[in-house]
Amino acid sequence: MNGAQALIRTLTRGGVEVCFSNPGTSEMHFVAALDAVPQMRGVLCLFEGVATGAADGYGRMAGRPAAVLLHLGPGLANGLANLHNARRARTPLLAVVGDHATYHKRYDAPLESDIDALAGSVSGWVRRSARSADVAADAAEGVAAALTPPGQVATLILPADVSWSDGAEPAAPLPVRAAPGVPGATVRSVSRTLRSGEPCVLLLGGAAARRPGLEAASRVAQGTGARLLCETFPARLERGAGIPAVDRLAYLGEFAAGQLSGARHLILAGARAPVSFFAYPGQPSSLVPEGCEVHVLAEPGDDVCGALAALADEAAPDAKPLLREAERPEVPDSGDLTGAAAAAVIGALLPEGAIVSDEANTSGVWLPGATAGAPPHDWLTLTGGSIGLGLPLATSAAVACPGRPVLALEADGSAMYTPSALWTQAREGLDVTTVIFSNRSYAILNMELDRVGAEPAGAAARNLLELARPGLDFVALATGMGVPAGRARTPGELAVQLRQALAEPGPHLIEAMVPPLG
Amino acid sequence: MNGAQALIRTLTRGGVEVCFSNPGTSEMHFVAALDAVPQMRGVLCLFEGVATGAADGYGRMAGRPAAVLLHLGPGLANGLANLHNARRARTPLLAVVGDHATYHKRYDAPLESDIDALAGSVSGWVRRSARSADVAADAAEGVAAALTPPGQVATLILPADVSWSDGAEPAAPLPVRAAPGVPGATVRSVSRTLRSGEPCVLLLGGAAARRPGLEAASRVAQGTGARLLCETFPARLERGAGIPAVDRLAYLGEFAAGQLSGARHLILAGARAPVSFFAYPGQPSSLVPEGCEVHVLAEPGDDVCGALAALADEAAPDAKPLLREAERPEVPDSGDLTGAAAAAVIGALLPEGAIVSDEANTSGVWLPGATAGAPPHDWLTLTGGSIGLGLPLATSAAVACPGRPVLALEADGSAMYTPSALWTQAREGLDVTTVIFSNRSYAILNMELDRVGAEPAGAAARNLLELARPGLDFVALATGMGVPAGRARTPGELAVQLRQALAEPGPHLIEAMVPPLG
Repeated sequence: MNGAQALIRTLTRGGVEVCFSNPGTSEMHFVAALDAVPQMRGVLCLFEGVATGAADGYGRMAGRPAAVLLHLGPGLANGLANLHNARRARTPLLAVVGDHATYHKRYDAPLESDIDALAGSVSGWVRRSARSADVAADAAEGVAAALTPPGQVATLILPADVSWSDGAEPAAPLPVRAAPGVPGATVRSVSRTLRSGEPCVLLLGGAAARRPGLEAASRVAQGTGARLLCETFPARLERGAGIPAVDRLAYLGEFAAGQLSGARHLILAGARAPVSFFAYPGQPSSLVPEGCEVHVLAEPGDDVCGALAALADEAAPDAKPLLREAERPEVPDSGDLTGAAAAAVIGALLPEGAIVSDEANTSGVWLPGATAGAPPHDWLTLTGGSIGLGLPLATSAAVACPGRPVLALEADGSAMYTPSALWTQAREGLDVTTVIFSNRSYAILNMELDRVGAEPAGAAARNLLELARPGLDFVALATGMGVPAGRARTPGELAVQLRQALAEPGPHLIEAMVPPLG
Repeated sequence: MNGAQALIRTLTRGGVEVCFSNPGTSEMHFVAALDAVPQMRGVLCLFEGVATGAADGYGRMAGRPAAVLLHLGPGLANGLANLHNARRARTPLLAVVGDHATYHKRYDAPLESDIDALAGSVSGWVRRSARSADVAADAAEGVAAALTPPGQVATLILPADVSWSDGAEPAAPLPVRAAPGVPGATVRSVSRTLRSGEPCVLLLGGAAARRPGLEAASRVAQGTGARLLCETFPARLERGAGIPAVDRLAYLGEFAAGQLSGARHLILAGARAPVSFFAYPGQPSSLVPEGCEVHVLAEPGDDVCGALAALADEAAPDAKPLLREAERPEVPDSGDLTGAAAAAVIGALLPEGAIVSDEANTSGVWLPGATAGAPPHDWLTLTGGSIGLGLPLATSAAVACPGRPVLALEADGSAMYTPSALWTQAREGLDVTTVIFSNRSYAILNMELDRVGAEPAGAAARNLLELARPGLDFVALATGMGVPAGRARTPGELAVQLRQALAEPGPHLIEAMVPPLG
């Protein structure tokens, strides 16, 4: 069989069963081979940033990689920002980048570019298959690389002639290295610190943001008095009633400083030592308080949950986790549709088992509080800070978890990066409800302009920060891509439309008309 | 003054007066500084691919660079595909990429990534400003680098603290090296070849596709019998009544082979030796016919038009250029709205001085013929093959040439890469008329699937090549971004709507419902 056929069969044997695709001519043999391997589901995306963001969301929810099929260097370039987010999320993901035939590259045809340089900037593993006889083994290695704890982007560069030439055979999956356990000495050392009587903060990240990690961490906190925090942008945070609640470290350094204030020891479990998202004149880059010692219980690639469980047994053997009580806000029965009111509506109606893709940015500051006691759900965030991830993440969460409702909570500015994710939702009939927080502004930049100490914005500066003139009509945009949509101007309208969207199968969009900052 | 202020003043002194922008926090001092320098026009784009594609179109039409302001590595990544197209167009363009403060980079904050690797893949010049005192000199050098013949992408990486720190002063523009003249011996050698009596083809590219180059080349052809061709995807081709007509080398190798058939000598004037766009099994990569000798009259960075004029004087001193006669098709008064009929309508109505951004792909094969005798106009093409350029190019052509009508002829699949260019057209009130060739298919891939020798497409393969289910409603999409739009189902409807769009100021969109291949 040809290289493309062997590649796809190797992927499905390795548990890679979805390929988010935006192919071109050099990928046509891969496309043609899909019909021979029905175990592989090809999902068409109209832009590569949708495809890569979708592969990220799939990996976060399925715990195994999706493939993403990209067309040469420019296709990879279009998908690169969301691969950056996937790299920061440590998502297992296999990017397959078609390339010109090996013998064609030296002719520098128009689409020729430095694929390797781009791939290297986001991938933990890069391989260029040289022959059709190699591609299956390369693919098996790529899948194993993607799954190597804590997970990473692996990129396989697939020349067209490697794809179309015969002489290939599928390869069996390779074993995946397990996450290394944390030495007992480390656990005992951290335990001693926790029991020293000095103020401790336990900062959770990666796998620790899932239920087993949260329960172990909560036992530690209950037994030792340590404060719990979660990294600012977790890839996947399990939360809601019956799960230990943990606040995320704030995006704004001033607020993060308050959360960490007084800590004498900062213990990292799958998280990195906190740093400011941006630099600000006169502000420190590190968020670790002066005089606070940093201890690493577990690196992101370690067995973080095992380490937390061992730590709980050591430091707090009799403690029980503190589980969040069920609690929901009421739907506000009057007043404006502020960000706070919209959050209350969402908190009131969030269904059990929901997957929330949160790219609501400034409009979303009330969401964590309003949903903290809702039925158990997963919360996916913008790990790498590159906006345009929310709609693709939601799309693929629904592909990975067909029985679960998915909610995309999306800022208007960010939505315009990858809007065609809505089309893929419509085509695939996915149960995704998108709420656009339409404040007609890059609100976060209005805030940041002040925080970086720039002079007050004049007309020319304001012109680059606001999205009015003309206003974006997301109802028209969604409808134009086959997604039924409505506009909500009051909390009551939002509640009615959200109930209906959640009750009906398939995708829906609600444009929530919220004020710029509040 | 701070680095940002000195940078912007240096740019405007150097003739850079438009900045297509999608800024973030690290660029806020640049944004704030715009109010102090009214000579710089900031144009907001909702996605970086729009901003970079727009900077490409501006550079092609203005002959001097626009700046494009991008947010860190992910912002550059989102704009990279259209910088690839700009690189292939040899467009003078200055990318300003904000970065974290110099001292913040080692903290590996979420948005940290390898900007230099990405910039290097598309830029002929890359500089990372180290201090605010350096940034103006760096910027002056970057502008001169962008303008160095034949033109290139120059990238200035601007750390946030370099932007916000004081101690900077504007710098004067640097001299730009002129395009080197071609030695007389080369001209005489090519002239001897042309007069040898053996079949010659003169292949034009770059600056030779403008009127002076075309007139000189036409004199050569008239005087020597050489055939004239233009590179497949010229950055800017002047054409129409009163200008020498030149066919473009065909995209499909089979057709290109026919155009070059029998040539004994291929003379390159600003063009590269032709290669196949993609590799196909059993087909040659080079399109130079067997036994045909290649001669370089002028490299793209040489004084191509001067070389052609000297060649004309040498080889054909008495010849006159053959100017295209005025000729327009009729608007078809019946029949379906095929690609051919749509092209006839456009040929019938194309206004004098129009700028055409052509990304119509398969639907556009009838356009060159139907518009060849229309009033003089410029034709901009997809130089690097990375789709998603057409709408941004049209947007900025209108910014660069406010008195001229702009027509974007756009395939539906390609339009979905950078649709928010329409919003920028609406915001800036630009005279752009977009015709979407809505065939609901990646038609070119259906063709290529067969050409690469893949097996016939089954259902899974076809699923990745067609854009129906759901159909895209471009009227809704345009309206949602503030651009008045209509749908044309017959040639007559297209004519009525096109006349009206061209007569009214501001942007318009017409969705032309054409069949998949024909």
